[in-house]
Parts: sequence; structure tokens; C-alpha cells
Amino acid sequence: MAEEEGALPPKSDFSAWYNDLLWRAEIMDVRYPVKGLYVWYPHGFAIRRHVYGLLREMMDRSHQETLFPLLIPEHEFMKEAEHIKGFEDEVYWVTHGGKDQLDVPLALRPTSETAIYPMYALWVRSHADLPLRLYQIVNTFRYETKHTRPLIRLREITSFKEAHTVHSTWNDAQEQVEAAIAIYQEFYDRLCIPVIVSKRPEWDKFPGADYTIAIDTVMPDGKTLQIGTVHHLGDHFSRTFSIMYEDALGAQQYAHQTCYGISERSIAALISVHGDDRGLVLPPEFSPVQVVVIPIPIGKRKDEVLLAASRLLETLQKAGIRARLDDRDLRPGAKYYYWEMRGAALRIEIGPRDIDAGMVVSVTRTGQRSQIPVDQLVSGVTDVLGGEAARMKVRAGEMLRSRIRPAGTTDELVAAVGEGVAVVSWCGEKNCADSLEEVTGGSVLGTEARLGDIGGIPTACLICGSNGKATLVGRAY
Amino acid sequence: MAEEEGALPPKSDFSAWYNDLLWRAEIMDVRYPVKGLYVWYPHGFAIRRHVYGLLREMMDRSHQETLFPLLIPEHEFMKEAEHIKGFEDEVYWVTHGGKDQLDVPLALRPTSETAIYPMYALWVRSHADLPLRLYQIVNTFRYETKHTRPLIRLREITSFKEAHTVHSTWNDAQEQVEAAIAIYQEFYDRLCIPVIVSKRPEWDKFPGADYTIAIDTVMPDGKTLQIGTVHHLGDHFSRTFSIMYEDALGAQQYAHQTCYGISERSIAALISVHGDDRGLVLPPEFSPVQVVVIPIPIGKRKDEVLLAASRLLETLQKAGIRARLDDRDLRPGAKYYYWEMRGAALRIEIGPRDIDAGMVVSVTRTGQRSQIPVDQLVSGVTDVLGGEAARMKVRAGEMLRSRIRPAGTTDELVAAVGEGVAVVSWCGEKNCADSLEEVTGGSVLGTEARLGDIGGIPTACLICGSNGKATLVGRAY
Repeated sequence: MAEEEGALPPKSDFSAWYNDLLWRAEIMDVRYPVKGLYVWYPHGFAIRRHVYGLLREMMDRSHQETLFPLLIPEHEFMKEAEHIKGFEDEVYWVTHGGKDQLDVPLALRPTSETAIYPMYALWVRSHADLPLRLYQIVNTFRYETKHTRPLIRLREITSFKEAHTVHSTWNDAQEQVEAAIAIYQEFYDRLCIPVIVSKRPEWDKFPGADYTIAIDTVMPDGKTLQIGTVHHLGDHFSRTFSIMYEDALGAQQYAHQTCYGISERSIAALISVHGDDRGLVLPPEFSPVQVVVIPIPIGKRKDEVLLAASRLLETLQKAGIRARLDDRDLRPGAKYYYWEMRGAALRIEIGPRDIDAGMVVSVTRTGQRSQIPVDQLVSGVTDVLGGEAARMKVRAGEMLRSRIRPAGTTDELVAAVGEGVAVVSWCGEKNCADSLEEVTGGSVLGTEARLGDIGGIPTACLICGSNGKATLVGRAY
Repeated sequence: MAEEEGALPPKSDFSAWYNDLLWRAEIMDVRYPVKGLYVWYPHGFAIRRHVYGLLREMMDRSHQETLFPLLIPEHEFMKEAEHIKGFEDEVYWVTHGGKDQLDVPLALRPTSETAIYPMYALWVRSHADLPLRLYQIVNTFRYETKHTRPLIRLREITSFKEAHTVHSTWNDAQEQVEAAIAIYQEFYDRLCIPVIVSKRPEWDKFPGADYTIAIDTVMPDGKTLQIGTVHHLGDHFSRTFSIMYEDALGAQQYAHQTCYGISERSIAALISVHGDDRGLVLPPEFSPVQVVVIPIPIGKRKDEVLLAASRLLETLQKAGIRARLDDRDLRPGAKYYYWEMRGAALRIEIGPRDIDAGMVVSVTRTGQRSQIPVDQLVSGVTDVLGGEAARMKVRAGEMLRSRIRPAGTTDELVAAVGEGVAVVSWCGEKNCADSLEEVTGGSVLGTEARLGDIGGIPTACLICGSNGKATLVGRAY
């Protein structure tokens, strides 16, 4: 449905590459007539299905899926003061039904705390009901006044996976925070996306949270993208919404809570981290087309080649591999271009000489070329595809590490933030953070980063010289 | 999370039974603080996942999944005059973002024609692009002023599967209508829900359609529930939205379209058609818990029984059966009650004597009792469960047929509509339809019903005596 004209800009021109790739690879159509709302093409949505299928599977191990309403009545939405402050400028309001003005304006959920927690107040009765761990995958809304960007900054977040848990104690909730981080790390590991886990500074935590742990990755232009957050809510919301349980001794206690979310930014990261100048590159697990069979029909053996190609297709599909046959009347080169753009993980070419040799030529999307005997097609394809994710993981990990640099001086700081993420020493004072941000044009991403040992960071705060600790500074999307 | 108090009203008191079952079986919580909006409990949502998993699988055979925005700008929504007339009283409007009034009010989709077709106008270029067959599963909104009811009449329809297809000719679109009906019939056949397919009268067709085919079922109180519709849109919307293609001769032509949908009313029907005085009854394919293992621990052999029960659980789960072990400290009878309410398809009891005999007792939700040798557990369970759907289908089919009666006189008509659906002769004139509706308090559901031969229907219109044809009259939800 997307027309092919001209060439994809090189990935080094990231913003142009990203925008162009979205339509050339048929991921999102940006021509919907409202700012910040986009349309998922079927190919893009197929990627979403595979990615969210995994997320669901991982959540299901320890959570139950549920579904709450989109519309939140004003009086519930306005109950939690800090939460309101964080969201009031961004909330869409439904004020009319038909020609009637509604008695109570309804907010489109920007996130679902105020929809879910009044029900949790009814559901939680006893310590035996805890922990309660639910999640939902829903659309949420933000009235973004900044520049919007498909999959990254949206007015309708179409694919928000949000989990909301309830626990007896603050420590139980803290353990859940760690469990959630582990799930998200495993999720991104499967997507072959390396992440940085850190604790957001006080002023950047979720409105109403005790603290926020963020999962960031670094995009090809060196800017960071927040692709997951985990919040310890303490008893902040449970006091507002009266979520109480009877403890083992019969006393009423306020519960402790966490919430954590992942959105379609996971797909933005998947596309951006792995893609190349020829288009989409996806770990085979998430590619809508894992193998495309391309017949190379020469002269009078055309029918024979097409028949052999169909047989390959059938064999692959029977083995549960997402395979397609491209028998369109186009030059093979045009087909290579087409499927590379869309991230087919492996291309199989079969021509008269291959038939005679009982072999096919296989070329992975990352360029691994080999020959596979026809009578070992499935195992051969499985082997070749099996190595792809590991290779992508290594490459992406190296890329990320090259973007993170210790900085002991202002010059080093500015240079590091220009290229990616700086690790500096910071005393924890807001004034010094403001200076770090001012001098770089970036922001303090977080502390307590789980990055292993990054050497070369002085203990003295880069700004004031007081005792400081390792802190990430970068330019964030 | 739902408290168990008192007993479920008998199903003969259908409305009370339905409302009570929804919370006792943990399907929907109706306490959300906005009229017409409800919360899916995890158990209810698990049923939805199985039902919609099947629907997706069936749609995927010939359609691609996609996702369009929820918000429709006023100018697009207002393009199609008949469509507006059909929906303008029911549409929710977003008028504010944060504290700003929006330049263009945004409608919450009541259905997605006006969101999707402007994009189809961009996507469809040539006859080679056709047919185009897409679907999405989304939340849609109706400002219902009538009495709302969970899963049946909602302000947020949380689970609307809508398909939108584009074709070259009117006949191609008609073939798609038939293909869609076949999909829906197969879908409801898998749910063991018998349906009535008929053509809605002119005044009840979808706003903007050439004609509407409806899928109805009959609820336990004799009222019909519309659980699917298929619309032939002709070139009505393609002219409004300029959806044109170049035909094989190079001429520009208006496309022809269809759309069709199924909502969570499918779940309302599933619950209502099969449930009984003890709670939920589900075809095993859709039950979140297919087998529950209940240990009957007696005295000092308690540990041995619990161990044997765990082994049964493990064996069943390894075989891909959705099994659970209920080892709570409750009387077995209380557990039977609990799992019957929630529609567990099969209960397996194991006590000391069963262990000694190498057997377990199995009781299906519909009351089939048998013994299964432990060493043939999986095949035994599969056999027993395999017969359940067929039994449920037969029972539901008989129930439906008993509700459909030919009527040759007004008295017969009134009596038949009192019990279910009347088949009468009607000339096709609106005046006569008004009389049919007035005398029964019901409505003309449709003509051309695909019911096989229903004898005993005169050819003369029951009202005016002119030549008529077989027509369904019933009270609809």
C-alpha cells in the first residue's frame, strides 16, 4: 500500500531515516488527519502482535490480565493532588454526549491509576488477597503540545501495557519493583535491545510515586529513549483511594503499591536500534516474515522453479515458520530490496542450478550467506535464523556501550552528551543538576545505574566539588 | 475478589440470574463509577481472550489486522449524511485538551468508517490493490440513554471486532458479505451458540448501507440478541470519501465496500445460552479452567492425596490442558460450588480409595460422571471434554428451535413473540410492520431468514392480506 519512490535516507541521518522507514516498511501511516495520531499498517501491526505476544506471555507468568474503562470521571481523576499536577495539562476531556453536555466531564485515561484504584479499594479486603498483580494492554491519551512523532511521542498511545500491583508492606512492593525490572530486562533482552536501568531524580519521578526506576536505551542519534518505567507508589495512592487490608492480627492497614508500564516505544526502539540503510532488521522471533522464498526462474525451466519454490514454502510453513513465496512478476533484485526493507529475516533463492544441486541459497537480513541442502531445509533454516538474534544482540550491545562515557570535566561532559550518555559525579542537589543540564542541553537521567563498573568517575560533584555519586546525563526523547 | 453470599437466582429469573452471575463468576464488576462502563475481572477477561483468540485466528485466514485511531475529527465524521443521522445522538465529543478548547472537536469512534475510509482513499489506487480486507479489535463508544447492561448495552464497547473491505464491483462485495456470514456462523458454531441469520428491514439497516444481514440469537427470556452484523455498503461511502481505483482499462471507478462486526455481546450470549442454575457453563475450548483437580484428603493419608493431586495437575498441564489444583483448606463441596460457578469444564476428584484403585473420578460441568484410570489421564480427560461441546450444541440448538414458531393469526403472533420469535407473513410495507410491532410490543427482525423450512406460514400478509413473505418478529435487546 506504500508506494516505493526514491531511496531510504542513510541511517546516519536518523530522523529522516526513521520517518521514511515507517512508511516504506509499512509500519505506520502518518497521514491520518489529526496531529499525533497514526495508523498501524498491517505489517507494522504484525510486528506489534509478535512483540506484545511475548510481553503478554511474560506477564502471564505472575500477573493476570484485566480491562478497565477508558473514561475516568472528573471527581476520581482529581482525587490525588500530585497526580493531577503531573497530568492536568495533558488530559483530554469528553464534555458532550450527542448534543447533551455531560453532568460530569470524563477524562480519557492518560494512565489508569485513578480508574483502577477505586476498584482495588473494593477488591482488597484481607492480607490473603495480596499480592494482587494485574495488567492491561490499552490505549491511553496525552494532549501533547510538543512535536509529536510516530511510536515515540503520541496523542493516542495505542499499546500501553500497564501493570498495577498491591502488597502488604513497603518492602513487598520494593521486591515487586525488582521483579518488574527483571521482567522488563528479559523482555528487552529478547528484543535484543540493550537497556540502561537507573533511578530517576526526584523531580522526574512519576507523580505520586516514592521513586521511579527507568529503562532507557540509546537511539542511533545518541538521544536516550525511555522505554519502560517502574514506580514504587508506597501508600500514597492507597491513602487517597482507601485501599486497605485486614492484617493477620485483624487490624486495618493501608496497602503498598507499584505500577509499571511499557508502550509502543518498545517498537520504536526495536526498529531504530537494529535497522540499517536498507530498511528494517528484526530478530527473527518478531519478524512477520521469517523466510521469503524467491524463485529465480530462468527461461524454459520457469515452471519447474516455481513448483520447487512452492514446495519449499509448504515445507517451511508446515514446520511453523512464517514463510512467504514472492512469485510476483518482478526482477529478483527488486524483490530483495522489497523484503529487506520490510525486515524479512531470511531470503531463500532457488533457481535451475540450485534444483540440480539439491541446494538453496540462503541470505539472512544481516548478510550471512550460506547454502542449505533441500532435504535439510527446516533444520538448516532454523540454524541460520537461530544465530541472528545473538549477532544482533552483540552488535547492539557494543553500540550502546560506545555511547556511554565517563566525564570528569565540563568539556568531557559536553562531548559525551553530544555523542550519547555521560556518566558524571553529582552531589544530589537540584542546583547542580540544573547546571549539568544547562551546560549540556541535556537532562539528568538518573542515578544508581545498573551498568557494571564504569571507571574513571571522580567522587567529587562535577559542579560543586562536594561528595557525589555516579549519575547519567543525556539528551532524552 | 467477589464475595460469595447467598445463592444464585434460578436461570428462569433471567435478568436477576444474569446480573448476579456476572459478579459471582467474576466476569464483570458493575461498580465502576460511570453508568454503562464496567470492569473485566481477570476470570472474565480470560474467557474473552479465548473467544477473541478464536475470532482473530478465523479472521487471519483472509484478513489482516490493523489499528486506526480512536479520535475522529468532526469534519470527517460529518461527511456522510446518513451515517451522521444514525449516530449523532450517540457520539461522545472530546472538546478540551488540558485547559485548552480544541480547534476541532474529536468524536470517540462509535464505529470506524469515518476514521478508516479517508485512509482507504489514499491506499487504494488500482484494481490490483483489491480486494482489501482489514480488521481491528478496538474499544468504541456510544452515549446510550437507554438502560445499560454489562456486555449487552454499553457506553464503552471494549471489544469491537470490526472488518472493513474494499472491492471492485458490487457483486464482489456481495460475495464478501456471504463470506463474512460464513465466518460468523463458524465462529458461533464453535461457541455452540445457534444463530438466526436474516436481512434487517430497510429502516433498521446500518446508516449508509445498501443492506444489512444480522446474526441474532435468542436469550433465555425469549428476547433476541443481535450478536453480529454484516453490511453491504455499495459505493455509498466510496463516493463520499473518494475511494477510487483504476480498472484494467485505465478508467477510474468507485470501489464497493462491506463492513461487519462482532462485539462482547458474543460473550453475553455465550454466558446466557449455556449457563445454568449453578453458574457458568462454557465449551471447554473457552473455559479458563478446563480441569480442576480437587483432593479429597482423608485423615492420615492427606499428604499422599495432595501429592497425587499435584502429579495429576502436572500431567495435565504438560499436555497443554488448562488445569488447576484447588488445595485450599475448604470442604470439597464448597470447592465444587466455587468451580461450577466459574465454569470449570471438568472436575477431577482424587481420594485415598481412588489412589488405591489407580483411578480418578471425573465430573463434567454438564454432569457427565465417569472414572478415568490414572495412567490414561490425558486421553481420558480429552475424551470426556471432547464430548461436551457437541452436547452443549445439541441442547442449545433445541432450545433455539423451541423458541421459533410460525404464526398465522394475531393471537398466534402475540403468543409466539411472548415466548420467542414469530415467523409471520409480511407484505414488506412499513405500515404493516408498524402494526406487527404495535400488537406484539416487539420488532420486525428481518426477512430471508436462513432457518431451513419453517412450515405453516401463510403467503398472505398477516396484517393486510396482500402477498407477503416469511418474516421474523421478536422482542430485541
